[in-house]
Amino acid sequence: MLPLPVLEQVRDELTDWQGGMSVMEVSHRSRDFIALAQQAEADLRDLLAIPASYRVLFMQGGATAQFSAVPLNLAATDACADYLVTGHWSQRTIAEATRFVRVNVAADEAASRYSTVPAQAALRLTPGAAYLHYTPNETIHGVEFPYVPESAGAPLVADMSSTILSRPLDVSRFGVIYAGAQKNIGPAGLAIVIVREDLVGRARADTPLVFDYRAAAEAGSMQNTPPTFAWYVAGLVFRWLKREGGLAAMAERNRMKAEMLYDAIDASSFYANPVARECRSWMNVPFRLARAELEPVFLKESEAAGLANLAGHRAVGGLRASLYNAMPAEGVEALVDFMREFERRHG
Amino acid sequence: MLPLPVLEQVRDELTDWQGGMSVMEVSHRSRDFIALAQQAEADLRDLLAIPASYRVLFMQGGATAQFSAVPLNLAATDACADYLVTGHWSQRTIAEATRFVRVNVAADEAASRYSTVPAQAALRLTPGAAYLHYTPNETIHGVEFPYVPESAGAPLVADMSSTILSRPLDVSRFGVIYAGAQKNIGPAGLAIVIVREDLVGRARADTPLVFDYRAAAEAGSMQNTPPTFAWYVAGLVFRWLKREGGLAAMAERNRMKAEMLYDAIDASSFYANPVARECRSWMNVPFRLARAELEPVFLKESEAAGLANLAGHRAVGGLRASLYNAMPAEGVEALVDFMREFERRHG
Repeated sequence: MLPLPVLEQVRDELTDWQGGMSVMEVSHRSRDFIALAQQAEADLRDLLAIPASYRVLFMQGGATAQFSAVPLNLAATDACADYLVTGHWSQRTIAEATRFVRVNVAADEAASRYSTVPAQAALRLTPGAAYLHYTPNETIHGVEFPYVPESAGAPLVADMSSTILSRPLDVSRFGVIYAGAQKNIGPAGLAIVIVREDLVGRARADTPLVFDYRAAAEAGSMQNTPPTFAWYVAGLVFRWLKREGGLAAMAERNRMKAEMLYDAIDASSFYANPVARECRSWMNVPFRLARAELEPVFLKESEAAGLANLAGHRAVGGLRASLYNAMPAEGVEALVDFMREFERRHG
Repeated sequence: MLPLPVLEQVRDELTDWQGGMSVMEVSHRSRDFIALAQQAEADLRDLLAIPASYRVLFMQGGATAQFSAVPLNLAATDACADYLVTGHWSQRTIAEATRFVRVNVAADEAASRYSTVPAQAALRLTPGAAYLHYTPNETIHGVEFPYVPESAGAPLVADMSSTILSRPLDVSRFGVIYAGAQKNIGPAGLAIVIVREDLVGRARADTPLVFDYRAAAEAGSMQNTPPTFAWYVAGLVFRWLKREGGLAAMAERNRMKAEMLYDAIDASSFYANPVARECRSWMNVPFRLARAELEPVFLKESEAAGLANLAGHRAVGGLRASLYNAMPAEGVEALVDFMREFERRHG
């Protein structure tokens, strides 16, 4: 979901961006595009208060490309890296990382069916690990870390695809933050990588150029043609976030949206969310109906009522609401109203 | 450059594609998007008459990612691959490939300053090479192969970023054809890979998932979130090409556009193009002024006259006109008129 004012600006400028051409047609080497690219980075730095000692890269291939790029950039072939497993996406991350590095699973919450996250004291960290990787928010299981793990000296790496820009963040705690754009940033096909300067320039010799943090840092992310249109839309989203009051305002809005929905779920035995309260995601709220046979009915009727995308991921079934930045509070209110009405009719 | 009717459709559908949402917001797993994706592939297959024994992949990272993906998918680490060097882009391709495979330069036209291509008989091919790679059209040097090389049994691999869809093509001659989208297909951030079935499934164990032809083939190019918006625009461009009469009509139009411009250059000693006539590119026409000091004047005055993007690449200087599919004949006529007028005033 993208903010409507952003979509409207994209539409209005589509055939004529800054005079005569579509932004899709503008060369990434042109003065106008370079200005756009730099402004987008400056706005993102502003929003997240990114320290000067961090580089911001605009890359391709989504977060999945970063699953490979992280070990290629940060670990020697014989090194060991620690990974925390808290759901589907951290599992996918590890499946990819094992091609490139020895993976130590420092915690795996499978026994809880991924309804909680490990405590700091439970992490089995490897002395001298190349890095510690975790997934702060799991979109499918709806579980979110309420704390930033301590890594005992290794760089901390986080896949923030589904939580970046949802609230303020202390970037200085991290070695690398990466995020596919398609949740809170812009169209699919762009990934943002925020990397501490001392971690740039360590890539293995067999790192593909398009994955190499140094190549991207030195070329302003233009070592090859970047996804210019996605970059442009991301820049408009950053501007929109600033106009809306920045990440403190977003955090307040997102907290309220999530509370409204969890309160409605908890208030009734008709609905249930299985996640430990302190680890509940602000962005993705999975829920079940006590009578599972009513879930397809709920989906059908909610869609007819104009509430889109409420099916749970096929890996877990059930229902799920995603409350990314672009989802207004009114959208959550409409969902909660529908849930009450549905329970009244079927409960 | 994109066709204006395509841009206008993108604009008109931007906030509401098939009912209520932007195509940028639609899940790549939704029925509507999958139908769009399949239609785009079917139209591309139609246009290029792609045999059923070839897979069509929609990937990310541009042609540069394919510089790495080709050896990772087609060659063992100790294998040798043949490369033809005919300009800037084939040089870049080799610089990347050497990370992954032993490169044999089977021909290098440096002595001609990349003003021609090697003859078939001059290719020093390696018996048992993993593949033969070449760049059918070099955008910076404006040189194009007038023939498809014979590879003596090895799969033939071509970077067609700047020439795909400019005319009909006998796909069956090739093992792999790849192309970044941003010349003749759609917005940057998408790459098309057309790969013969028997070459799918050979990737090395350390091939990143987003580069693996088999992973993409098995998942309908959705092993991770694809660049949905770029895919959508590409589909509209394929539709436009079919409406315009397909690639035979494009070939006729492109041949005429190129002839018009080369004739104007050749007709005057004021302008010059250094490329051997039989190897002149239909897509990129570099030219110099006999009085080099007039080139900045030409650039400034042509831009003021509404003729954009005529600077030569910074690697070679001079001037260059690109005549991709979306450039109408009227655009070339306007350039030729301007050139005559400029010569009249300064010649």
